[in-house]
Amino acid sequence: MSDELEKVDVLQANIIAAGTNKKTRRIVNGFGSMMGSKEMTQPHFDESKEDVSVNDVLEKDRLEKEKWAKHKHISEQPWTINNWHQHINWLNLILVVGIPLAGLIAATKVELKWQTFVTAFILYTFSGISITAGYHRLWSHRAFDATLGPRIFFALFGAASIEGSIKWWGHSHRIHHRYTDTPRDPYDARRGFWYSHMGWMLTKPNPKHKARADISDLIDDWVVRVQHRHYLAIMVFMSFVFPTLVCGLLFNDYLGGFIYAGILRACFIQQATFCVNSLAHWIGVQPFDDKRTPRDHFLTAIVTFGEGYHNFHHEFPTDYRNAIKWYQYDPTKVLIWTLSKFGLAYNLKTFSQNAIEQGLVQQQQKKLDSMRRKLNWGTPLTELPVWEKSEFLEKSKSHSGYVIINGIVHDVAGYITTHPGGEPLLRASIGKDATRAFNGGVYGHSNAAHNLLATMRVAVIRDSAAARKAAGASDGSAVKK
Amino acid sequence: MSDELEKVDVLQANIIAAGTNKKTRRIVNGFGSMMGSKEMTQPHFDESKEDVSVNDVLEKDRLEKEKWAKHKHISEQPWTINNWHQHINWLNLILVVGIPLAGLIAATKVELKWQTFVTAFILYTFSGISITAGYHRLWSHRAFDATLGPRIFFALFGAASIEGSIKWWGHSHRIHHRYTDTPRDPYDARRGFWYSHMGWMLTKPNPKHKARADISDLIDDWVVRVQHRHYLAIMVFMSFVFPTLVCGLLFNDYLGGFIYAGILRACFIQQATFCVNSLAHWIGVQPFDDKRTPRDHFLTAIVTFGEGYHNFHHEFPTDYRNAIKWYQYDPTKVLIWTLSKFGLAYNLKTFSQNAIEQGLVQQQQKKLDSMRRKLNWGTPLTELPVWEKSEFLEKSKSHSGYVIINGIVHDVAGYITTHPGGEPLLRASIGKDATRAFNGGVYGHSNAAHNLLATMRVAVIRDSAAARKAAGASDGSAVKK
Ligand code: HEM
Ligand code: HEM
Ligand SMILES: [Fe+2]
Ligand SMILES: [Fe+2]
Ligand SMILES: [Fe+2]
Ligand SMILES: [Fe+2]
Repeated sequence: MSDELEKVDVLQANIIAAGTNKKTRRIVNGFGSMMGSKEMTQPHFDESKEDVSVNDVLEKDRLEKEKWAKHKHISEQPWTINNWHQHINWLNLILVVGIPLAGLIAATKVELKWQTFVTAFILYTFSGISITAGYHRLWSHRAFDATLGPRIFFALFGAASIEGSIKWWGHSHRIHHRYTDTPRDPYDARRGFWYSHMGWMLTKPNPKHKARADISDLIDDWVVRVQHRHYLAIMVFMSFVFPTLVCGLLFNDYLGGFIYAGILRACFIQQATFCVNSLAHWIGVQPFDDKRTPRDHFLTAIVTFGEGYHNFHHEFPTDYRNAIKWYQYDPTKVLIWTLSKFGLAYNLKTFSQNAIEQGLVQQQQKKLDSMRRKLNWGTPLTELPVWEKSEFLEKSKSHSGYVIINGIVHDVAGYITTHPGGEPLLRASIGKDATRAFNGGVYGHSNAAHNLLATMRVAVIRDSAAARKAAGASDGSAVKK
Repeated sequence: MSDELEKVDVLQANIIAAGTNKKTRRIVNGFGSMMGSKEMTQPHFDESKEDVSVNDVLEKDRLEKEKWAKHKHISEQPWTINNWHQHINWLNLILVVGIPLAGLIAATKVELKWQTFVTAFILYTFSGISITAGYHRLWSHRAFDATLGPRIFFALFGAASIEGSIKWWGHSHRIHHRYTDTPRDPYDARRGFWYSHMGWMLTKPNPKHKARADISDLIDDWVVRVQHRHYLAIMVFMSFVFPTLVCGLLFNDYLGGFIYAGILRACFIQQATFCVNSLAHWIGVQPFDDKRTPRDHFLTAIVTFGEGYHNFHHEFPTDYRNAIKWYQYDPTKVLIWTLSKFGLAYNLKTFSQNAIEQGLVQQQQKKLDSMRRKLNWGTPLTELPVWEKSEFLEKSKSHSGYVIINGIVHDVAGYITTHPGGEPLLRASIGKDATRAFNGGVYGHSNAAHNLLATMRVAVIRDSAAARKAAGASDGSAVKK
């Protein structure tokens, strides 16, 4: 637009958005390269052996590009008997399918004590809410700040959900928001329900779609660093050892604790939170925006501790709430709010109420417009033939039913016996100008009557106000008073 | 509009609407002049001793007008100790207050047998549905036609409701529809809940507001004529004698039958149907039109056998339905539909679905527009100052926060720490043109972001597309892509 004005350098800005502009500490964990879908979403910090700079990353990207230009990545090859095992992310398969399946089989042999059930349920809630309040709203979206206590709690019990470290999770999640419904979206909902639910983590993604997000603020939190570095140990302890010990020491049910409060609890919480990527982009309504797939649904909210108002969430990601109506289910919001009352959470962010209502108004307007387009609002005045008055009188001789109202000729023949005001009045108006009678002289007709009238249009009378209007503007809507 | 075109003669049309154009048979009943609020709504046929013609009626109107010009009618005088008894319609007071009160007192002394209760309930349903299906939808609105059987049933059990004859009721009701919310409306809802519920029938109305409606089609039905002529006898028999006999002969409860199935049943049905004039113009929503008072409410429907969707009904009075959604309660509609399946009702009228949906769309549009007006959509482009590019650079030196997007200068200073995309990206854009970065170069922002952006407008840049738009049209809405 201007040569004097500096434009934002899009390449440079994208580097900032990817977080590759800063030299950052490298943190690795025992899981190392096995965790998650690293080809696609692994934080760049871990890409080289040492701390990295912009140029390192750009150089690496260039080399990678060259490499995959030469030979096809496994994700671009068809599944065959020879290569199917290469398509699969075996670690994830064990973590989210293998272990849960083993747990289910074991459950058929092991009795479930009610005390163990209660413990499992409590731990289920703890690990679930650590993902939603901690991993998601606190770390991924900075929707509020929390003191050390809750952060450690979320880091420990979040690890117990077996969904990766905060660092890895937050990075993928920010990418999901920035690239929603594109090939770079790790859980791209357009690829189907199963892909966004689990398929994305069970198969190898295409490195060509690799994306990055700035998570330097996460790395600044030592809780995040420590959790990532010791993720394997924390995860094993929190998801298996801890539940086993609790049930064992408290009511001597070591095995039940391991199976129910350990394995099956983790499996349930995995499935529940996976629903945010699948169900929440699949079922429900779009009250705020329909450009992308996220949707609001009560069922999703029930399953996910309140993350089901996902259309709202994608539109207003930094809002600590997901549900804004009192009758919507969002226990995560309630927890954060309660923490804030005890001083454990602060800087709770809410989006401008004005912007929220603007979204509602715009979406409702769209729906209304599409309803409106399906209805018959009568022939637009501009498309009607123009009749001379003499023509009207002439034509009225051979057809009984023409009535002029507001300068427009209407054919009311089919309406005479149905007219709520009775036949005689309509009959008395045929062949005449009934403008005054219709508009209050006899009866001030409702909107419905005006709408109905518009569907009976036949012609406009030359030199009438309607004819002038037709000549001036093209207006297809019903004539309003 | 034209000198060649004949306009509908409004005076003549009003005479047709009032039904005074025809010489009609005179039918009187034993109640004679006592019934209803005759000063206001008595059918003109009964005004003179013989059959009347147009001129008779007009002459009578003229005389009446002269008379009330000279001395004030009681309804125009204030209530005093000397005249209060003249204000009251004593017959109605006895019929709708006195008798029910006596019944209530008697009920405290007389035991209620369950058989009598069941009989009372059945008769309650019969008389209620005879008012709604018969008096109202069949006769007042011609919403369907019925064979002789149902008509006789409705005439008999309708009389048992003690609400006047079909002829009188239909006449008042047609006046109510034509003059809704005007002084001529017999149950003018604007005069308050109690006036529209019972006040109108307990006090003397002002003859100055007398109105007429054509009911010649009612008079053409011999059932209507006979019921009117013998109304007193039929009413007394059907509301008191018949219930007494049924309960007496079947289970020897003459007194209980008289009190419960007679008096109290009639009192309940009166109150229920009065609710259509009060409650239905008072509580609820207006999904089709808000020009007048009628409203839709579930509670009113429950009480009135389905007449509670009154906003719909006033808009589409000839529709045999009052409720159009499957989950709305309208047993009267179900009865009419069932009768039609047995050939007892026919010509069921429904309003054009197109017109019904048009009403919905228009009302929703109104609500949306009023919501929209309450929101901040940003300063209209036309009201913004125009800045030179140099001015922008100059001002950016002293204020850190100006960003140009789409040719408009925005002050983002207050948003930096809240930006979901992070602080660094916004900081990197300050003092620059971020149009490309904002519109997909870095991230394709949601509608919400565009709305928010509009509220931060400060100026337009000279010669930009936005400046040209501002010069051309006045557009206060958010900038859309
Ligand atoms: C083709 C043109 C007409 C249409 C589509 C039409 C439609 C309607 C409709 C839908 C109503 C129901 C109530 C309402 O809208 O508020 C109504 C009532 C009425 N119309 Fe018309 N009308 C037409 C022409 C006329 C004319 C020319 C007259 C008078 C000369 C007239 C007199 C009345 C009266 C008096 C009522 C009141 C009836 C009542 O609600 O009890 N109509 N008309
Ligand atoms: C004052 C102007 C701006 C406003 C009001 C604004 C507003 C927003 C909002 C509401 C979101 C949430 C998600 C969405 O809308 O879809 C968002 C996300 C984002 N914005 Fe901005 N933005 C502004 C300027 C910018 C600029 C100039 C850039 C880039 C240079 C940018 C980059 C981003 C990115 C990358 C995201 C994605 C973050 C995520 O969803 O995880 N924004 N912005
Ligand atoms: Fe999502
Ligand atoms: Fe999110
Ligand atoms: Fe009404
Ligand atoms: Fe009605």
